[in-house]
Amino acid sequence: MSDVSDGMCAMAWRDNALELLDQRLLPGTVRYQRLTTADETARAIRDMVVRGAPAIGITAGYGVVLAARARYAEDPAVWQTRIGLDLAMLTDSRPTAVNLCWAVQRMAQVMVGLTGNPETRLLAEARAIHAEDVAANRRMGQLGAALLGGRGSVLTHCNAGALATGGYGTALGVIRAGYAAGLIDRVYADETRPWLQGARLTAWELIQDRIPVTLLADAAAAALLCQGQVRWVIVGADRIAANGDVANKIGTYHLALAARYHRVRFMVVAPTSTVDLSLADGSTIPIEQRAAEELLTLGGQPVAAAGVEVWNPSFDVTPAALVDVLVTERGVVLDPDAGKLARLMAIGRFQHNAASIGGTGPENTG
Amino acid sequence: MSDVSDGMCAMAWRDNALELLDQRLLPGTVRYQRLTTADETARAIRDMVVRGAPAIGITAGYGVVLAARARYAEDPAVWQTRIGLDLAMLTDSRPTAVNLCWAVQRMAQVMVGLTGNPETRLLAEARAIHAEDVAANRRMGQLGAALLGGRGSVLTHCNAGALATGGYGTALGVIRAGYAAGLIDRVYADETRPWLQGARLTAWELIQDRIPVTLLADAAAAALLCQGQVRWVIVGADRIAANGDVANKIGTYHLALAARYHRVRFMVVAPTSTVDLSLADGSTIPIEQRAAEELLTLGGQPVAAAGVEVWNPSFDVTPAALVDVLVTERGVVLDPDAGKLARLMAIGRFQHNAASIGGTGPENTG
Repeated sequence: MSDVSDGMCAMAWRDNALELLDQRLLPGTVRYQRLTTADETARAIRDMVVRGAPAIGITAGYGVVLAARARYAEDPAVWQTRIGLDLAMLTDSRPTAVNLCWAVQRMAQVMVGLTGNPETRLLAEARAIHAEDVAANRRMGQLGAALLGGRGSVLTHCNAGALATGGYGTALGVIRAGYAAGLIDRVYADETRPWLQGARLTAWELIQDRIPVTLLADAAAAALLCQGQVRWVIVGADRIAANGDVANKIGTYHLALAARYHRVRFMVVAPTSTVDLSLADGSTIPIEQRAAEELLTLGGQPVAAAGVEVWNPSFDVTPAALVDVLVTERGVVLDPDAGKLARLMAIGRFQHNAASIGGTGPENTG
Repeated sequence: MSDVSDGMCAMAWRDNALELLDQRLLPGTVRYQRLTTADETARAIRDMVVRGAPAIGITAGYGVVLAARARYAEDPAVWQTRIGLDLAMLTDSRPTAVNLCWAVQRMAQVMVGLTGNPETRLLAEARAIHAEDVAANRRMGQLGAALLGGRGSVLTHCNAGALATGGYGTALGVIRAGYAAGLIDRVYADETRPWLQGARLTAWELIQDRIPVTLLADAAAAALLCQGQVRWVIVGADRIAANGDVANKIGTYHLALAARYHRVRFMVVAPTSTVDLSLADGSTIPIEQRAAEELLTLGGQPVAAAGVEVWNPSFDVTPAALVDVLVTERGVVLDPDAGKLARLMAIGRFQHNAASIGGTGPENTG
């Protein structure tokens, strides 16, 4: 698939430090922050210098490398004890995406039994997490595109692109692959208030890849679906419960309702690192409440009446019953439910052929 | 109802001119524009100095007074011919709200047979349109509040308040009356992108009346309705077709879908001047497409990726089947359809007792 780019890198390890593209400044300014400590890394995640479930997972992986370097320099004898605080801080830097926890735990497993300076081995693991994410996105792109059926338009919400991942994207990975295959003629992008990830990030990524993109207000999505040209709604995920309920950017649930009403199909694209089998359903997924300022101001300017209260949940939960298909790097799950997700997660990570669970496979529907 | 204000005046006739509160500057700045010509009036409507279907109807009525003054000064013999261009300009200043057309036609009917300087008689008619609108809103407030049933929260979209009308408001009129009656404990207000009428205008009006108001992103509404504390969605309308289909601010359709899914009741509040029996259903209501700039910039600052295309419809159409109740100054229509709307519109304008069509009346459900 050399004809489709992986998109702009959200993060890179360079000269012994983590560099993060500051997504708060996009699309106007392209500036990288250089981070050398776990503290800085946690703050960057919290402040949304980097965002997107897979991207913050990868970032936290690199953050563990920075933490280990500092703790080992402090005291090589007890660094593995002291780093516990850093791991907790990174895990807790944002609450909803489970990828943070997943990546930190994976790094922690590598730490077990390490002797001597751990940095080289941990950096290799963080880089592996990063590389595997890009490979997973490429794989999901193929699997998702194969499900699209005929040519048409798609609608996406927030940014589940290169900027939200290690590269290429989850939902935007399917869109990149689908466009390259001639199955997508236009992408409609919700602007995604309050942070405007759609207007600022998704539109920017797609324009760079010369994929036709049309921006709309979030509230216009149902009217768009009513018109009939959109065949699929394609979104990412921040956490998927054991029964297939999906936490994703606020507004995803709204879209899923509108898609079902208009018989538009609804696809969730996420690596299995996003699946949290410890939660039976979406009701127990922690939903981050963000600052009122995000709705009260824009670019530092007040835009709302002074004194108004604000409800600003950053995510919502879409019940599995509204999800037509879940695309992961291990395979495709049609009409996801607890049994199908359990089967998916039992599949080995390195199995060559992706599974198709719960219906006709991509081979049959492409 | 002396305990509830009519809210800030959107327009007033003072010292032989029309003064319009410039709603583009709210809530930061309270500034009135002074208009002395029909040209200026049409431009103010087009540029959204004043907005809201009833408010732009009233404004157009005053605009006819300004047009008649100028045309009569030009040539008392042929002013009634020449004013035709002004009437068309005012009618066409925005396409979706039918109240513009309704008000201009009502003024034109008064012009027939007028001799001498027409200004005094036309001003009296414009003032009557204005005063009747406030009275209608007060009446609708009572009728709508009587339908609320028990105490709870409501959700509204855009601004259908004092600023969108001659005073008091349509949807916000019901909310003002419902709050005064102890039936509403909190109002949730969608911010209403792109123009932020909810954040800027609805929140501002409600804060001035000390009614508890919580702002949320438009895309968060479905997640809010899922939580169960909202009992009613209450909105205004820009045009209602003969079958009860409702054109209103973009996002209203989205809300109606979410309300039905969550068994939250959906109330449309609009004077009968908003009903257009000439259109069989909503499919033929003209939907205004507004400038891409509204989504691309905010406060003059670019907020979206350069080069993105934009779809920016200002209104959408909610099918009558999703409307639980339509409240007008002539009465209440439950589960509106063509037959019930025809009966409503056949009721005399000055009938004392409001009708209840299609179900139990407000007397029985309050």
